Amino acid sequence: MRNRRIVLASRPVGETVAENFRLETEEVAGAAEGQLLLKTLYLSLDPYMRGRMSDGPSYAAPVEIGAIMTGGTVCEVVESGSPDFAPGDIVQAFSGWQEYSLVPAKGTRKINPSLAPVSTALGVLGMTGMTAYFGLLRLGEPKPGETVVVGAASGAVGSAVGQIAKIKGCRVVGIAGGAVKCDYVVKELGFDVCLDHHSATLKHDLKAACPDGIDVYFENVGGAVFEAVLPLMNNFGRIPVCGLIAGYNATGLPEGPDRSPLLMRSILTKRLRVQGFIVSDFGASAGEFFRDMSEWFRLGRMKYREDVVEGIENAPAAFIGMLQGRNFGKLLIKMG
Amino acid sequence: MRNRRIVLASRPVGETVAENFRLETEEVAGAAEGQLLLKTLYLSLDPYMRGRMSDGPSYAAPVEIGAIMTGGTVCEVVESGSPDFAPGDIVQAFSGWQEYSLVPAKGTRKINPSLAPVSTALGVLGMTGMTAYFGLLRLGEPKPGETVVVGAASGAVGSAVGQIAKIKGCRVVGIAGGAVKCDYVVKELGFDVCLDHHSATLKHDLKAACPDGIDVYFENVGGAVFEAVLPLMNNFGRIPVCGLIAGYNATGLPEGPDRSPLLMRSILTKRLRVQGFIVSDFGASAGEFFRDMSEWFRLGRMKYREDVVEGIENAPAAFIGMLQGRNFGKLLIKMG
Repeated sequence: MRNRRIVLASRPVGETVAENFRLETEEVAGAAEGQLLLKTLYLSLDPYMRGRMSDGPSYAAPVEIGAIMTGGTVCEVVESGSPDFAPGDIVQAFSGWQEYSLVPAKGTRKINPSLAPVSTALGVLGMTGMTAYFGLLRLGEPKPGETVVVGAASGAVGSAVGQIAKIKGCRVVGIAGGAVKCDYVVKELGFDVCLDHHSATLKHDLKAACPDGIDVYFENVGGAVFEAVLPLMNNFGRIPVCGLIAGYNATGLPEGPDRSPLLMRSILTKRLRVQGFIVSDFGASAGEFFRDMSEWFRLGRMKYREDVVEGIENAPAAFIGMLQGRNFGKLLIKMG
Repeated sequence: MRNRRIVLASRPVGETVAENFRLETEEVAGAAEGQLLLKTLYLSLDPYMRGRMSDGPSYAAPVEIGAIMTGGTVCEVVESGSPDFAPGDIVQAFSGWQEYSLVPAKGTRKINPSLAPVSTALGVLGMTGMTAYFGLLRLGEPKPGETVVVGAASGAVGSAVGQIAKIKGCRVVGIAGGAVKCDYVVKELGFDVCLDHHSATLKHDLKAACPDGIDVYFENVGGAVFEAVLPLMNNFGRIPVCGLIAGYNATGLPEGPDRSPLLMRSILTKRLRVQGFIVSDFGASAGEFFRDMSEWFRLGRMKYREDVVEGIENAPAAFIGMLQGRNFGKLLIKMG
């Protein structure tokens, strides 16, 4: 069997481009004792991967030049070197941008395909759902009647954040790119309002949408959205910082003036709590997430949308599009 | 009796100047039923008052033009319209920049002068001590062995923050203005290190002083000190934001580049928690503060230094000097 995989060819300087990736082909070995040979069904593409492509300081080591791009996957077991797995089993792995992989059986999580479509193990019932869940509930601490604002509202994380906030009794204002996404966010996901971040009157629109101010801003965007949000934050507001996709392709700091004193002054006078997090920090509490989220899913209170692209060879273009906001829902690569 | 008081003559534009204040004289009325006529013994001068002089949005209403400057005081009861107070009693009040005042008896706190010098009710055993206590312990959550950094380390709040952190078993690095203050901070207050913020090599000095990085940065300065601190913050570090004195006289935002994306990125990747607070948010827990702080004071583990200026007419110049870092210890006006 031959495996096709995507490696990091070079580090992006500014915009991420196709030339930063390279498709390679290699022979696949069989599963040794304690290993699983996996065939990838779905690969998850997520904004955090942009950070792995750079070698600046971050919360995880960068992908080395020439090494395979990392990523979460849902796979089928082809060959098992472990008594706990059989060919045909579906598992969730972290096997990266490739069609086949050899992984240690230990620590690999089996998925029950009868409970939900297996791709949800990468989305609403997986890493992105868990990011939304812990970021909003543990750091955001939304209370009934409070106003929660979330950017990238039709995306994998944002859509779950807003729906959880609705379940918790909050007024929820989403921000997304374009009328089609905004329409979906309100009509399908049940947000109270969704604003287009392309609007020239975003600051004004947001103020009108948040007559009682903002209590929780789930930050996964940065840039102009954050600038519109900050003046509207209420005293004792919380800002879980999950991502800053608007700045991921930046090569340096934006032009002045330096707005950081304004940010610090707002934090001080409004007693804001601004806190960064990574989903892996909450690994020990995963059971709580699976229990709540599966229940909401079963009750039809947790909807999701997938943007599925076929073929590993199309992963780089899909990823680049996501950084530009061109995906609509959770971005997945479905293997051929 | 005649009362001399300082009113706000005009709002500062940039540097605070003497012309922003005006000394007035008025007749003092007697204490009506439920009132106390107080003679001020000490007036506390604190950086937060600079915020009250401006009319921008903040956590408290600004002082109106022509109105008396607000401030905490320790006073002697001259005339009492309440059975709970007698002439000669010493009380802590919030009677502002003046020699005499009429205040409601209800809510005025009596001080026992046999326990500590009465001026400490404005410092280590009062508002500034309480600011240090709750900001460090509730928001900073220092753990034994962690590194705590605090600016304005010889000042009223900073000196208490560092000493509490030492009591909690931390490595404590202070930052202060000049060799004399630094010497005091290390030799008298027992900080492990104190660095001069005037040093051209502050970033390097701070890195050398924090070989294990920084776990808690108690922010009461802003500006260049914060810039030196941020790259050294450890994962899961905490930054209680108490004040930003370096920027209080600013008329606008500093020149670019815009460093706020760098701040947000550091918060994200290091999972920092940056949180503003005001001491009054913790009023309900004051008992806990008085219990601990009085005990530390009694044991000689909580030292303090006062910078006492005599005469209400000298309050404006003393206040302006404090904003420039010219005080050394808790700044008090002792009334004639």
